Amino acid sequence: MERPIGVFDSGVGGLTVLRELARVLPGEGFLYLGDTARVPYGTKSTETITRYSIEIANHLITRHDIKMLVVACNTASSLALPVLRKIYKIPVVGMVDPCVRRVASLEKKASIGVIGTTGTVRSGAYEQALRQAVPKARVTVRACPLLVSLAEEGWAEKPVTRDVIAEYLSPFRKDPPDALILGCTHYPVLKKPIAGFLGEATVLVDSGEEAARVVGALVSGNGTEKGTRAPHIRFLVTDDPERFSRVGEIFFGRRMDSVERVTL
Amino acid sequence: MERPIGVFDSGVGGLTVLRELARVLPGEGFLYLGDTARVPYGTKSTETITRYSIEIANHLITRHDIKMLVVACNTASSLALPVLRKIYKIPVVGMVDPCVRRVASLEKKASIGVIGTTGTVRSGAYEQALRQAVPKARVTVRACPLLVSLAEEGWAEKPVTRDVIAEYLSPFRKDPPDALILGCTHYPVLKKPIAGFLGEATVLVDSGEEAARVVGALVSGNGTEKGTRAPHIRFLVTDDPERFSRVGEIFFGRRMDSVERVTL
Repeated sequence: MERPIGVFDSGVGGLTVLRELARVLPGEGFLYLGDTARVPYGTKSTETITRYSIEIANHLITRHDIKMLVVACNTASSLALPVLRKIYKIPVVGMVDPCVRRVASLEKKASIGVIGTTGTVRSGAYEQALRQAVPKARVTVRACPLLVSLAEEGWAEKPVTRDVIAEYLSPFRKDPPDALILGCTHYPVLKKPIAGFLGEATVLVDSGEEAARVVGALVSGNGTEKGTRAPHIRFLVTDDPERFSRVGEIFFGRRMDSVERVTL
Repeated sequence: MERPIGVFDSGVGGLTVLRELARVLPGEGFLYLGDTARVPYGTKSTETITRYSIEIANHLITRHDIKMLVVACNTASSLALPVLRKIYKIPVVGMVDPCVRRVASLEKKASIGVIGTTGTVRSGAYEQALRQAVPKARVTVRACPLLVSLAEEGWAEKPVTRDVIAEYLSPFRKDPPDALILGCTHYPVLKKPIAGFLGEATVLVDSGEEAARVVGALVSGNGTEKGTRAPHIRFLVTDDPERFSRVGEIFFGRRMDSVERVTL
């Protein structure tokens, strides 16, 4: 059997990343793990998130022999990636570097906005990476914890979501940034109201799309790219599969079959 | 040393209960445990919440010799209380029965609203208890997951909070209930906008206030009531104490000294 690509997140958000991975790499097999028993990661400490990430990586490597690990969670990417890269032999792809690489490739990049969870913002991971990649840019970072709940409620189109976005993005009201990094895998489902608030001049950078590009390059570089059959995807969760399937559909864009519960 | 009363919640919400307990029982000692490494409980399964609750109760009983356990979390009360009462010798007080008892004591109780987390609502615990206590009442139950985030953001006074409340409580717009059970310990900090939406005819039932009444009766019944000195309170958390102290202040109403981190 071919070795799958392991993808993990605290819950359903990472499904926006998996959706892009599956689109770009239809010939690969994927194993997605949502740590729904301990979701969310956004408000937890570096120490805790690092411990959780190691437990998950150990499980995916020892039990499922994954060939690559995609940390499809901006919080875990911001807090735990250096440690994961130090520990594991397989390639580990996070969300921060692919987004920053995209920003660096833009023509207009004088002012950059980043939105994410409390944990991501407090880590300073985006500022640090942006300082190296686009040293002259003015960077504004904002934690937007409510957006996760709004996305999971399926309220993307509700007026109240526009109001919350206006509240969080008020620093950008007069002066929209050249690019806004959607630094949480939940946010892509809110692209429309976010774009509606900022206007067309701001490029929205989506972690899933950017990570899929990086993973695609790694896979084809390794000579393991596959044919054009539909990707085989297996879903593992640490809590009730039913809620994961129901809420996850908002993020994955289609029904998920065979969600299995595992104990880490 | 006197044995403390153990109080636990998934995080900061239970502090609204502790605040009431400390007010009503100033002579007691309290040990509060916030399971912040695994917060929130509201979206997790019965099996998972029961396992977490047992781990916490074991810790509080074996390490700290508590004399009574207050489950200051409506989700854990709704899902795990029967099991906890079966296992432990010490009295276990939950949030559901005290609220329902209060409703039963009201003069007007033809229509009752209950708001809570997804887990609380799906458990059916309130409907079941209300059906026994006030069999003739019309009961409307609504899950309001966003209210937890709004409360933790400290946004009680923002217009967006009024909009979210209007969205969730829309079934009550034309016909406010005689009583609304605030079936989540986060909600008391949102009392003002909730009351503003429903109007003065609806009695808001607060789990903390009702539970404090029940605990007070148990303690004085046991002959362990104390003098009038300030209560001694110790705080334990399973993740970063700093965030707990910062966000917790919204719920506890004052600064918390000496928050310790524990591993369960």
